[in-house]
Amino acid sequence: MDNGGFCYDNYHSGDSDDELVDISDVTVDYNEDVPPLDRDYNTGHCKADWRPNGSPKLRDLLDVSGIGTYEDFNTIDWVREKSRDRDRHREITNKSKHSTLALLFSISDAFSGWLLMLLIGLMSGALAGGIDIAAHWMTDLKEGVCLDGFWFNHEDCCWTYNGTTFKERDKCPQWKSWAELMVGVSESTVWYAYMASYFMYVCWALFFSFLAVILVRAFAPYACGSGIPEIKTILSGFIIRGYLGKWTLIIKTITLVLAVSSGLSLGKEGPLVHVACCCANILCHFFTKYRRNEAKRREVLSAASAVGVSVAFGAPIGGVLFSLEEVSYYFPLKTLWRSFFAALVAAFTLRSINPFGNSRLVLFYVEFHTPWHFLELIPFILLGIFGGLWGAFFIHANIAWCRLRKNTSFGHYPVMEVLIVTLVTAFLAFPNEFTRMSSSTLISELFNDCSLLDSSKLCNYTSVGGGRGGSVNATIANALADRPAGPGLYTAMWQLALALLFKMVITVATFGMKVPSGLFIPSMAVGAIAGRLLGVFMEQLAVYHHDWAIFRGWCSPGTDCITPGLYAMVGAAACLGGVTRMTVSLVVIMFELTGGLEYIVPLMAAAMTSKWVADAFGRESIYEAHIRLNGYPFLEAKEEFRHKTLATDVMRPRRSDPPLSVLTQSGMSVEEVERLIADTTYSGFPVVLSLTSQRLVGFVLRRDLIISLENARRHQEGVVSVSVVLFTECDPPASPNAPPAVKLRSILDLSPFTVTVHTPMEIVVDIFRKLGLRQCLVTQNGRLLGIITKKDILKHMAQMANRDPDSILFN
Amino acid sequence: MDNGGFCYDNYHSGDSDDELVDISDVTVDYNEDVPPLDRDYNTGHCKADWRPNGSPKLRDLLDVSGIGTYEDFNTIDWVREKSRDRDRHREITNKSKHSTLALLFSISDAFSGWLLMLLIGLMSGALAGGIDIAAHWMTDLKEGVCLDGFWFNHEDCCWTYNGTTFKERDKCPQWKSWAELMVGVSESTVWYAYMASYFMYVCWALFFSFLAVILVRAFAPYACGSGIPEIKTILSGFIIRGYLGKWTLIIKTITLVLAVSSGLSLGKEGPLVHVACCCANILCHFFTKYRRNEAKRREVLSAASAVGVSVAFGAPIGGVLFSLEEVSYYFPLKTLWRSFFAALVAAFTLRSINPFGNSRLVLFYVEFHTPWHFLELIPFILLGIFGGLWGAFFIHANIAWCRLRKNTSFGHYPVMEVLIVTLVTAFLAFPNEFTRMSSSTLISELFNDCSLLDSSKLCNYTSVGGGRGGSVNATIANALADRPAGPGLYTAMWQLALALLFKMVITVATFGMKVPSGLFIPSMAVGAIAGRLLGVFMEQLAVYHHDWAIFRGWCSPGTDCITPGLYAMVGAAACLGGVTRMTVSLVVIMFELTGGLEYIVPLMAAAMTSKWVADAFGRESIYEAHIRLNGYPFLEAKEEFRHKTLATDVMRPRRSDPPLSVLTQSGMSVEEVERLIADTTYSGFPVVLSLTSQRLVGFVLRRDLIISLENARRHQEGVVSVSVVLFTECDPPASPNAPPAVKLRSILDLSPFTVTVHTPMEIVVDIFRKLGLRQCLVTQNGRLLGIITKKDILKHMAQMANRDPDSILFN
Repeated sequence: MDNGGFCYDNYHSGDSDDELVDISDVTVDYNEDVPPLDRDYNTGHCKADWRPNGSPKLRDLLDVSGIGTYEDFNTIDWVREKSRDRDRHREITNKSKHSTLALLFSISDAFSGWLLMLLIGLMSGALAGGIDIAAHWMTDLKEGVCLDGFWFNHEDCCWTYNGTTFKERDKCPQWKSWAELMVGVSESTVWYAYMASYFMYVCWALFFSFLAVILVRAFAPYACGSGIPEIKTILSGFIIRGYLGKWTLIIKTITLVLAVSSGLSLGKEGPLVHVACCCANILCHFFTKYRRNEAKRREVLSAASAVGVSVAFGAPIGGVLFSLEEVSYYFPLKTLWRSFFAALVAAFTLRSINPFGNSRLVLFYVEFHTPWHFLELIPFILLGIFGGLWGAFFIHANIAWCRLRKNTSFGHYPVMEVLIVTLVTAFLAFPNEFTRMSSSTLISELFNDCSLLDSSKLCNYTSVGGGRGGSVNATIANALADRPAGPGLYTAMWQLALALLFKMVITVATFGMKVPSGLFIPSMAVGAIAGRLLGVFMEQLAVYHHDWAIFRGWCSPGTDCITPGLYAMVGAAACLGGVTRMTVSLVVIMFELTGGLEYIVPLMAAAMTSKWVADAFGRESIYEAHIRLNGYPFLEAKEEFRHKTLATDVMRPRRSDPPLSVLTQSGMSVEEVERLIADTTYSGFPVVLSLTSQRLVGFVLRRDLIISLENARRHQEGVVSVSVVLFTECDPPASPNAPPAVKLRSILDLSPFTVTVHTPMEIVVDIFRKLGLRQCLVTQNGRLLGIITKKDILKHMAQMANRDPDSILFN
Repeated sequence: MDNGGFCYDNYHSGDSDDELVDISDVTVDYNEDVPPLDRDYNTGHCKADWRPNGSPKLRDLLDVSGIGTYEDFNTIDWVREKSRDRDRHREITNKSKHSTLALLFSISDAFSGWLLMLLIGLMSGALAGGIDIAAHWMTDLKEGVCLDGFWFNHEDCCWTYNGTTFKERDKCPQWKSWAELMVGVSESTVWYAYMASYFMYVCWALFFSFLAVILVRAFAPYACGSGIPEIKTILSGFIIRGYLGKWTLIIKTITLVLAVSSGLSLGKEGPLVHVACCCANILCHFFTKYRRNEAKRREVLSAASAVGVSVAFGAPIGGVLFSLEEVSYYFPLKTLWRSFFAALVAAFTLRSINPFGNSRLVLFYVEFHTPWHFLELIPFILLGIFGGLWGAFFIHANIAWCRLRKNTSFGHYPVMEVLIVTLVTAFLAFPNEFTRMSSSTLISELFNDCSLLDSSKLCNYTSVGGGRGGSVNATIANALADRPAGPGLYTAMWQLALALLFKMVITVATFGMKVPSGLFIPSMAVGAIAGRLLGVFMEQLAVYHHDWAIFRGWCSPGTDCITPGLYAMVGAAACLGGVTRMTVSLVVIMFELTGGLEYIVPLMAAAMTSKWVADAFGRESIYEAHIRLNGYPFLEAKEEFRHKTLATDVMRPRRSDPPLSVLTQSGMSVEEVERLIADTTYSGFPVVLSLTSQRLVGFVLRRDLIISLENARRHQEGVVSVSVVLFTECDPPASPNAPPAVKLRSILDLSPFTVTVHTPMEIVVDIFRKLGLRQCLVTQNGRLLGIITKKDILKHMAQMANRDPDSILFN
């Protein structure tokens, strides 16, 4: 069943659809009706049992015949994975003492992590560079074509032309707009030339977005969206096969270029994180250490998310902090250092490709010349409030929209949806020059501090250029300071206000469509527009009201006191913070763009306000909201569980339910075990000493049990249905002509995690989060009473949150 | 007993001396001979027991009569502390629904964390500014005095003097060197003037260091050393009363100024972290939330360490990462954001005080003009190797020195030691101008990129200044490039080489003396000297051998291709990395000094090499080495436990030991319990259902038990020695005229952590680290068999490390 529209639903193949939406089938389930087994063998007499002489054999078996692997849409066992890696490492270290070859292997194994990081950095940097170049070219293709070769973008096409000004060079003869090609005149001269350009713009946009959505649907449904919610879930230990595969990588790379070029209100930053993670996952296949260990692989993926942000913004430190703060689940310090390395390699690879043609590392390079004044914190905090409100509005609106798409037939036509949204976007965007340009160009313009020679409309001050009807006495020497706005700037303000409204509405509809779509750039664009508007307003206020008390002292006539570009930047940070709830990483990314510690305080004030305001309307970021919308089993590490429930309130079976279905250590036959497996769907069974004592011996996974029993039936001589299944090390006394027993101690986890019925849930949640558990057994006075799975916890948390919704205000 | 010398021994008051050196008495101990109790009440019949209707009452009692507090030199229980905070928070939230006042209180409570951060930032910034100013003045006082007022330092004194060059202004008439005051002529003219200056320099140095050591010994023994090892230990959950108290703060601040001014080879950066933590701890007293909760307080202290580094270097982001990477144990994301805020506030407070008189935020501001070339990575990696070797050498030598001080009578005379080291330092430092200046001035000079007007000896190139016997044709236009060294530079090189040797030796003896002493600056100085030497060598090589293959293409004649200042910086990073094993934070701090992402790659190459080389000789940083030297119970979070032992190998009692001493749920009298307490020294006792079944019910702390029993004897009617102690909720059947029972269920921890005997130690270690446990009970098949404490784990880890020393090479 494909319920259409919403991007993330797409991998619900066939009837496993409910698997993710309803958390209840993902992991171990003890909810169902199981007939209790009523016999009792008390075999506590095997004295050797509690102190095995050798090491447990559990892990020796893990590499063979599927034992120890995971099925799709399951949660990994972090503890087991980490143990396996330590075993592997121990083995290599031991071997290395005996031969030189093994020593060399051990050294190469130690450095393989670094090599992998290097490769990820190089590959992601190269891909990001390619995406930038292609998107730049295709964005320009919407407006015109280069006669020297269609593969040149506007800038490259006009590179050799010797225009005296930038404006002239922009209009070089080699570059033809579609209007010039079709009707022979440029679009600014006659109305039908304008219409021709308009038409071509819309057509290209539709073509690009159509291609994108078709490719996504045909080859890689996982390639849609930003990917960050899924990556968060995967990093927390969930398995989604193919989400980071090579097809996803190829299709996501191509369709990302198409989607960005189509002019939709989306960015490439989030998807770049997905692309980097795909690279990492694919490269992991060349290193046994990472290929075969889900926990180690996730360390690499954490580093890859840092790489993604690093290439998106050219901010390696910010990228690492983003991964730490926003995406990662398990982030040991070793990974921090490696992430940083990979992020740097990627950033420098990107710079050597030089897609922006200016050898700048960062996406938006800004340099401001005026320091900010203490009183300006008031407008900055206002921008923070705006950012927070926008974030809260966006999250609620977008989730509502996604729900609509999910629950109505509207969601069944994703291609149509993309085409309609593109049509609306392109149709409304073309007439307004600020929406016609790509979002990142817009942000660059808005961040820009006007210099004297700037020809942009945003820098149309009467003292500059001195053209259309400004006051004459303004053309004095210190032309940069004290600038009343010219008519061009007033027009620009109106256009920007319209652009703001347009962006706010259209972004809500865009995020979640079946094309790759990032949120960073649209959010930043909204904030940058709002910031620039406020900045220009403040500036003009200061120009016309020098005598006001608030301006006295620092903004006297003739001084350049307010930088609208800084306001744009602060606004962008505030809006991005409101939507993603990033804090430190946000400020650090912005700091890396400017390179000056000076402007950290305004950014921090805005980011802090924005987060507080947005949190007042709901503590979830857009990513967490999408995770919840899609029902992924994700245990949020940031928020504390604050309710006063105990383990006994959450564990299964409930009081009214039949008792827990368990295996006994040595009292069950193969047939009985097989019947239990067939009758239940739980993914694991506790093993007890005897049914009366309920003393816990260990825990065995369903998958391992099935594989081992099949194996025994097939390969072990004489195993029949009445053979006894033994989880002990020593044989119980048996009659001499009984069939041989099936010994399964090797697949038994002898150290399952236990809590008592009195353990507060806050501690249980903490244990699950910090140790990455899948399930935990609940005992009282040494008797096994129940089990708590990750899913039970998620359900319980959802219940408690619904019961007590206003507690979120106070953290 | 005071075994003298070594700084950290000092708080071993009286006979508790061995408490820290031998880990064996710190926490719970199950090692001693305890007669087993042989009776058995099986009271498993109380059905209500496993599902209490109300909430557990444990925590209601915690606030009264000392229950739930810790003694000095004990480890806190993170889980309990965090639970207590959640309870407190829940209570406030519940109350806030019922009255406006409570709502206001709840809001103020939510923001109190931010207010606290603000105050810490302001206070630490102000103190750091004061320390800088005072140290600057007193350092100059060793050379001379200002006639306009003795409280002016050299720079302020000559500020108003209108010298035409910097050099002239340096020699303004108001500032008199001691030679001028005593013999009337300046030191450069006659030998006895030089001797007078020399004599005064040594005298002042001795006076300052004498004052410092006397103050430390008299008022605050905890004020010595860098404080970082202790802060790491405290943050991991240990309690050292008074270590962060007001006396320590006052004395550390004063003696830090004295120690730095005395010219000893030490820095103020590490101690500033201690100062910031003292500020934080003192300010915590004004906020109930933090005063009464050890876990919350440690969150604040983590932020304070970030503040310390932030004010030390003017690097707020680096400071936060330092706290995260190097110091902190429990660092939730909320703390990350708050740390960042506090670090920023502190940095800006410091800047507004402007102690360096240049309104720069950072300690060493550097700006380089030449990019580095790919081939230069080879010398950078060489510097990394040097840094690693230096780090390994320093750690081994310093620890050996500290052991010597600790174990021989030499350690009994700390004042004498300080005076001798100061005498040697001052005596050797004065003749060499690079050691005579303060270490931070030296580092600034070495980092400096020579400009045309630079009068420093290090910039004495024949093309610059053109003075003493350079080639004439070098005075062409592009004077900055292609510069053969002048004679001044050659002299400087020799002096630097001597300074390097001197610093390397004297720093080993200095760190660990009974004065405040940081390591950052001396380490950086060593690295910067080595780097500058290599840089100048490379530069001259390039000047005289343009034709060599390695220089061809990027270093042709007439180009300025090699920046010795960059080499100095890379060397400083490498040496600091070798000693402290910082990685990301090191690179970020250095990045914040230059502000250019350009130079991150050289820094990273050097830091990485340095860490690898140093790790090959031992994985401990200097701080961890000192922690181990002092026997603090610190469980390193960075290193993985890689041995294949099981919980059963570590738990007490051992096989040959008598069984675990436990309490029974309802079978013991007050007298018996008191006898058990008196006979043992364990800090807690497991409570079991009955001695035969050994089914675990809970865990009770010794301290709580003593207080409760005393309380019952004093206040509860009719309690006598034969009264039964009950840990159950329901009364067992008792004869009607039996004395009333003492009910202690409220102090019973009903959810002690348990593992099984089969649990691999790597998992146990992981649990201890991540959850911050003090002890963990060991069961098998539901029977309580033993206990593992943090101390047992530390002992076990030490044993395993000794058995298998060469495994450290491969990580």
